[in-house]
Amino acid sequence: MDPHLPENIYCVSRPIYSNPAFEEDNERRVRGGRTLRERLSGYCGCSSRKAMQVLKGVIPVLDWLSKYPIRDSLLSDVISGVSTGLVCCLQGLAYALLVSVPPVYGLYSAFFPILTYFFLGTSRHISVGPFPVTCLMIGSVVLTLTPDDSFLLPLNGSSANETGVDLEAQEAQRIIVASTMTVLIGLFQVAMGLLQVGFLVRYLSDPLVGGFTTAAAFHVLISQIRIILSVPTNNHNGFFSIAYVLIDVFNHIDQTNMADLVAGLLTIVFVMAVKEINTRFQHKLLMPIPIEVIVTMVGAGISYAVDLDCRYGASIVKSIPRGFSPPQIPDAALFWGMLGSSFSTAVVGYAVAVSVAKVYAAKYDYTIDGNQELVAFGVSNVFTGCFSGFAASTALSRTAVQESTGGRSQVAGVVSAAMVMIVIAALGHLLEPLQKSVLAAIIVANLRGMFAQVAAVLALWRQSRADCLIWIVTCLASIVLGLDVGLLVGLLFEMGTVVIRTQYPACPALGNIPGTDIYRNMKDYKNVAEVPGVKIFKCSSPIYFANIDYFKDQLKAVVGFDPVRVFRKRSQALRKIHKLIKKGKLRAVENGTVATVSQGLDNQGFEDDMTLGRLEVDFRVDWASELPGKLAVPKVHIHSLVLDFSAVSFLDVVAVKSIKLVIKEFLRVGVNVYIAGCDDEIIRSLEALAFFDEVVTKDLLFLSVHDAVLFIRLETYNRSLQHANGNGITVMQENKEPLPFAEEEDLIEAYDNEHEAMHGLSS
Amino acid sequence: MDPHLPENIYCVSRPIYSNPAFEEDNERRVRGGRTLRERLSGYCGCSSRKAMQVLKGVIPVLDWLSKYPIRDSLLSDVISGVSTGLVCCLQGLAYALLVSVPPVYGLYSAFFPILTYFFLGTSRHISVGPFPVTCLMIGSVVLTLTPDDSFLLPLNGSSANETGVDLEAQEAQRIIVASTMTVLIGLFQVAMGLLQVGFLVRYLSDPLVGGFTTAAAFHVLISQIRIILSVPTNNHNGFFSIAYVLIDVFNHIDQTNMADLVAGLLTIVFVMAVKEINTRFQHKLLMPIPIEVIVTMVGAGISYAVDLDCRYGASIVKSIPRGFSPPQIPDAALFWGMLGSSFSTAVVGYAVAVSVAKVYAAKYDYTIDGNQELVAFGVSNVFTGCFSGFAASTALSRTAVQESTGGRSQVAGVVSAAMVMIVIAALGHLLEPLQKSVLAAIIVANLRGMFAQVAAVLALWRQSRADCLIWIVTCLASIVLGLDVGLLVGLLFEMGTVVIRTQYPACPALGNIPGTDIYRNMKDYKNVAEVPGVKIFKCSSPIYFANIDYFKDQLKAVVGFDPVRVFRKRSQALRKIHKLIKKGKLRAVENGTVATVSQGLDNQGFEDDMTLGRLEVDFRVDWASELPGKLAVPKVHIHSLVLDFSAVSFLDVVAVKSIKLVIKEFLRVGVNVYIAGCDDEIIRSLEALAFFDEVVTKDLLFLSVHDAVLFIRLETYNRSLQHANGNGITVMQENKEPLPFAEEEDLIEAYDNEHEAMHGLSS
Repeated sequence: MDPHLPENIYCVSRPIYSNPAFEEDNERRVRGGRTLRERLSGYCGCSSRKAMQVLKGVIPVLDWLSKYPIRDSLLSDVISGVSTGLVCCLQGLAYALLVSVPPVYGLYSAFFPILTYFFLGTSRHISVGPFPVTCLMIGSVVLTLTPDDSFLLPLNGSSANETGVDLEAQEAQRIIVASTMTVLIGLFQVAMGLLQVGFLVRYLSDPLVGGFTTAAAFHVLISQIRIILSVPTNNHNGFFSIAYVLIDVFNHIDQTNMADLVAGLLTIVFVMAVKEINTRFQHKLLMPIPIEVIVTMVGAGISYAVDLDCRYGASIVKSIPRGFSPPQIPDAALFWGMLGSSFSTAVVGYAVAVSVAKVYAAKYDYTIDGNQELVAFGVSNVFTGCFSGFAASTALSRTAVQESTGGRSQVAGVVSAAMVMIVIAALGHLLEPLQKSVLAAIIVANLRGMFAQVAAVLALWRQSRADCLIWIVTCLASIVLGLDVGLLVGLLFEMGTVVIRTQYPACPALGNIPGTDIYRNMKDYKNVAEVPGVKIFKCSSPIYFANIDYFKDQLKAVVGFDPVRVFRKRSQALRKIHKLIKKGKLRAVENGTVATVSQGLDNQGFEDDMTLGRLEVDFRVDWASELPGKLAVPKVHIHSLVLDFSAVSFLDVVAVKSIKLVIKEFLRVGVNVYIAGCDDEIIRSLEALAFFDEVVTKDLLFLSVHDAVLFIRLETYNRSLQHANGNGITVMQENKEPLPFAEEEDLIEAYDNEHEAMHGLSS
Repeated sequence: MDPHLPENIYCVSRPIYSNPAFEEDNERRVRGGRTLRERLSGYCGCSSRKAMQVLKGVIPVLDWLSKYPIRDSLLSDVISGVSTGLVCCLQGLAYALLVSVPPVYGLYSAFFPILTYFFLGTSRHISVGPFPVTCLMIGSVVLTLTPDDSFLLPLNGSSANETGVDLEAQEAQRIIVASTMTVLIGLFQVAMGLLQVGFLVRYLSDPLVGGFTTAAAFHVLISQIRIILSVPTNNHNGFFSIAYVLIDVFNHIDQTNMADLVAGLLTIVFVMAVKEINTRFQHKLLMPIPIEVIVTMVGAGISYAVDLDCRYGASIVKSIPRGFSPPQIPDAALFWGMLGSSFSTAVVGYAVAVSVAKVYAAKYDYTIDGNQELVAFGVSNVFTGCFSGFAASTALSRTAVQESTGGRSQVAGVVSAAMVMIVIAALGHLLEPLQKSVLAAIIVANLRGMFAQVAAVLALWRQSRADCLIWIVTCLASIVLGLDVGLLVGLLFEMGTVVIRTQYPACPALGNIPGTDIYRNMKDYKNVAEVPGVKIFKCSSPIYFANIDYFKDQLKAVVGFDPVRVFRKRSQALRKIHKLIKKGKLRAVENGTVATVSQGLDNQGFEDDMTLGRLEVDFRVDWASELPGKLAVPKVHIHSLVLDFSAVSFLDVVAVKSIKLVIKEFLRVGVNVYIAGCDDEIIRSLEALAFFDEVVTKDLLFLSVHDAVLFIRLETYNRSLQHANGNGITVMQENKEPLPFAEEEDLIEAYDNEHEAMHGLSS
């Protein structure tokens, strides 16, 4: 049938350790950092060409700017930069609302980061600058660290008990907190870049990001509603802040400013309508209609013309001071209180930027160096933070504008920064009459895409419960506990699902498809036959601490008996038979039979060459046959057990120890255990974990289930031949001795060993 | 060669969904709770027999006490109970020091829990009562919630500035905190028991418990050193508390009480020596020498005789009030501050008790119901907490005494509780002169086993880095951050290792062992041959969000080219050829050839049936051949790619989406992709996740790598036959059209889809 015999295969299944290629590869794998050595050697290289290459790696601008095709690209870069600059200004102003700082600081955040990113970044197309979700995350820390209570001030001309909030001092402190956090975010990113851990972003899986995004949109919406309504609310933060804010808003809903509400609603309607047009006719339009810019200009104009501020009490931007604020050393004392949030924000900001950058890199055929990007964004954030700005990432909408208007390199980014500078330096005051509610409405109108993801949850539920749960848990946690804690909870839950997914693996019994070497799940297929006397057990997951108990339970369920129990019952039975023999009620006969004396000689399958009347009787019992003296011992219907490990991708210390014990337990009740389909990696870790000894030898390894079964058949056949010479009855059940441990105390000891750690604990 | 043809196998590899057995099984698996339905039906059953069974499940004493063999067991149970009772008293007194409450409360903790456990527990052998690690964990919360500052009191007869600590009030508060926490621990355990989540204990893997235990021993040691030295120290807790305590001890080392130190050191020496003897001669001794009890009695006697308290200022137990303190409702207001610690303690206490119980259950052949144990311990703890005791678990040493002196059921436990009651009610004052340092020394002398585990770390390092790191991280975190936080950190790290272990799976290219159907890693074996034109790629781990990028990178590395890049280069080349044809410099000829006009007709493998001069030219290029006009396109040397998924145990949404995209990318450059060795579970999840469509069909699934290779060979042969009729040159490379997406924009769109969640985020 099958041309390859077990022996032949066995020698193949041993890895050739001396193979140098394999050794080297192994070393690389163990070290983890695939390119680490190359990088190091790159840094140590002495030739100037090499040094230049390294320098170009660290400061990519040296590489691309020298090759910059001025004739081809400069004009389109400038055009793109101008359009993007307008969007930058506007988004900067708007997103400053999310950070709870005056709008002008949003302009700073749109200006500074691009200056450093120009030198260090590897993406040519993304528009670096503020990004709503990170802004909101910074804003939440800002609100937490500058509570109203800390800035109480006795009100002028009233009794000492009445106090108001010192808004100016609070604002100044908010700016310090925001810029300090930005510096910390930058430091985290630089550190991650230098440690080459950019891959960590992969843990932000799609369902997790989906849930997180929806929660972020929800937070943004709630925080902007009060600005659109222009109702006074207290600042809430942390757990359940959304609920508190909503309660506040409803309590003060009668104080709504109608001018702001109308302007906000109109803005939302217009922006959403035009965005719809932009999407529908994207192939017919040269570039998307810059509706936000138009609305802003119109809004500022109307507000100025009608004097909404004075006449209707509308809340306007009010002051956009000319020029920049001087650089400021961040307040390192604040670092401790914002460590966790800063780290979350650093990760989110980077993840978004890199994901957008990769899309355009794929489109224009260049590569993004994730770790270099981390450094670039980190340095940009430290730089921005020192100039009172807040953290930069990118926004897809802005990047899309930059690319669709012809931006081909970060020269466009620098031009857009120049535009922002012009606004800061000269045109800023034109925007002063703009209502804040218009800015807030623009933000809200852009949330549609983020909320649209909710529709995906239902589909996800049908596809995969685990992934859908990740989405839901992350979303709920982020809404209820805040974005930073929510992200952490989501990540932990996500990690948990990986463990859980492997915790209850399918552990089917396999059967043979007649006439083939194929073994499949007995329950899934009709034409599958069990190999007589053999159980084939497949574990389709890694085996480790979390699922080893389940593995053992499943094994017992598939096999149909508990080997420990069988052994104990047999020991008891042996002791009773012993007693009976001593009392003379039973006797053992030459050809392996114990006979009740009253019944006379009666072949029941005992083997014996003992001397009657002595205690150290040595006889063997055929456990498959009927036992004398009403002894009940669970029947064992198999002689071999094949464990199919082809889908086991790793084993840990706990698992290996337990599997070894299980194998010995089965051997003790006369069931041979074979392991089939082990990967070379698994065999290596079995060796390292001291799996093999004089009882559990490498002979139990087989390349495939079929090989093991063929071997078992051969063995069984050989044994039956041997027995044919002797008694010729049963061949399947034998109590083989010597065995590793044959007495109950040894058994307990073995069990003890398994739980030794726990026992260390229980002193 | 091989008897089974692909077609034949294919139909087998489809699961038979209509199989009712499978359906039912599937339902059971999906629900997760294997025995849930059975349990429910059990509870709903109306017949009195069933109700009785359920009742016996809930209150196991009904089951075993009715069958209690009074003649056989009562005497030995009583003897065992008396000896265990003595140990109980002593350990209770000593462990109260760990909780930082007066010793008598340790006696309460040794008395109350057994009363309820007797009714509810399923273990017959464990001695329920205080356990050092849980005591220490409670103690750490007690110290945190009752800081000295809260109990300041102006000192009598001095100025108002000098204050002392109101020790009485502090002690009273400590007792309240300890008992409240015990109630909370009990509530957690009951809840876990009712939710049937006892399996969670499995996450406490051996390395984790080892590290945690060693850290606990370290904490115990440090906390007892100051009692042995009897130096005054402040109470420290939380992060770095060990360091603070040590600094305090060294600062006050000159105030050491010599009487206490000598008594303590002598106790340590004696107890450790006798314990060593007990271990060495355990088979010769009838029962271990109860050295702790002896030392305590002798110590109390000497102290009373010499009057150590007054003469040498030794710190003694002082007062053991007679009788019990009245029941107290726990202070629920304290719950919030101790949630995390209580949960950790609940888990640790339960884990230890169940692990010990299982050993004796295995020895005496009965089963432990984990969830029932949770309920039993939970109820016991709530009960104990209401009587001012602290949380119960078991201690292996005490259980060993109970079992070795003949305890066969919890009747022995009740007798030991009676002993404790006698001490509380009558004999307690005899222990009043006992030095605290003797009790502390007894605790320290028992730590040896826990510290012995450090030796195991080195061995573990050689066996498995990941497991060793779990040990080290848990240990260090528990030492530095405290036991509760440390346990949490260790658990998270442990979960992390599971993710990391699957993050960089071995992804080898497989080759065929000539003459067999065996495919093995090309790098590990010498006599392995690659199938010409076919790459076989094996992924030996689940594929999901954390490793999908690595999977794609490895695939590209194994295949040797990036299909996206190849396709882009080909598109560019096509456009250029287009232009050349338009300009008349190239022309396409009937039998698939593009010829440069200047060179005349020159067969280079273009297929064409187009009309010259029109834009919608339709021709095919043989990318394997030399291209005209200096066009450089990366060569693709394979025509088929087989993904061996036999070791893939699960796939998530992200992975399936990415794999589908990768397959389409390969198809687009003319490489057929096949998936081999998929488990039925995997196929089911592929279906659920909408993996299959009109391009990626189920036809690409094969039962084994060999089947796929045979199929590929057959296909290649057929195609070469067809081509032999036509041109007869190359058969391997063809740009097959129509393809799912053939233009660059489509490509970007597809890439976009992959990152859609991220893009939702970047609005």
